[in-house]
Amino acid sequence: MAHIDLGNQAPGIAALFAYRPETAAPINQLVETLLRGPGTLAPGERELIAAYVSELNDCQVCAPGHSAIAAVQLPGGADLVAQVKADPDRADITPKLRALLHIAALVRESGSAVAAKDIDAAREAGADDREIHDAVLIAAAFSMINRYADALGAAPITDPGMLAGLARRITARGYTG
Amino acid sequence: MAHIDLGNQAPGIAALFAYRPETAAPINQLVETLLRGPGTLAPGERELIAAYVSELNDCQVCAPGHSAIAAVQLPGGADLVAQVKADPDRADITPKLRALLHIAALVRESGSAVAAKDIDAAREAGADDREIHDAVLIAAAFSMINRYADALGAAPITDPGMLAGLARRITARGYTG
Repeated sequence: MAHIDLGNQAPGIAALFAYRPETAAPINQLVETLLRGPGTLAPGERELIAAYVSELNDCQVCAPGHSAIAAVQLPGGADLVAQVKADPDRADITPKLRALLHIAALVRESGSAVAAKDIDAAREAGADDREIHDAVLIAAAFSMINRYADALGAAPITDPGMLAGLARRITARGYTG
Repeated sequence: MAHIDLGNQAPGIAALFAYRPETAAPINQLVETLLRGPGTLAPGERELIAAYVSELNDCQVCAPGHSAIAAVQLPGGADLVAQVKADPDRADITPKLRALLHIAALVRESGSAVAAKDIDAAREAGADDREIHDAVLIAAAFSMINRYADALGAAPITDPGMLAGLARRITARGYTG
């Protein structure tokens, strides 16, 4: 149960967004731009970074949803998402995505955990500055969103059918639609 | 020096905002709404929450700026800001603000660190649900912004005159002006 009276029964973080639409709008705009806006990383790869950070933060409000969205969007599906969440080093992904996930895990820990060598490693794996920037900001944004959801006690979505519907809806219409 | 080529020499986090205006816009809109929008906490109290979280995160890009802004906006000035950063329990602030700073410190740690008893304590100190919500989201937002600034190596602003100018400018014109 939520820690404050949200005045609505929307599932997951949507209850917080309905409670305070003035802050929901820029959060959703940021997520839309980072995860679905123009860019050279596939939207599914960006969702995977969001899902991985949320999993490391043990955020049961965010991790299942973004995992389901990544699974819909990536050719490797739910099996690939599970591989990445278990261990990116053994997952069947590109070296570039692996290096960006490594940076994302450091950002989750703290900004100062990221060293020049981690950025260099991502560059050597083929990431450009914009991809590094966006991976950092995706990890930072979910460091916010996971905290927001968990600190206020938003209710996780646990029903598989609801998660599948959410994944289809976000994939079709996005976060601001 | 920044970890990626930002293509500009703007001071502090402004260099990241200039590099990627599409993500800067919603971040600044969120900060404007949380720190300066309509609300029952004084803008200086909200800046103090931002400065305190940034200080706990040891973010030298964000903590000095938001401390300077809070000092301009609060009757207690720089002395009060220093008291809070040293120890909120001994600072000359209201019990309500102390309870919200306590919640903010927990959110900084992790969302799941916040327990019902922490929310109850804030309510007993006079905070309403909206103030609790906003304190949580301010702490979560600076958990994002501190990571973003530090992970990409944004340059801190260290010149006292520049910090004072920044504080006057933000106080007069805000984050989206």
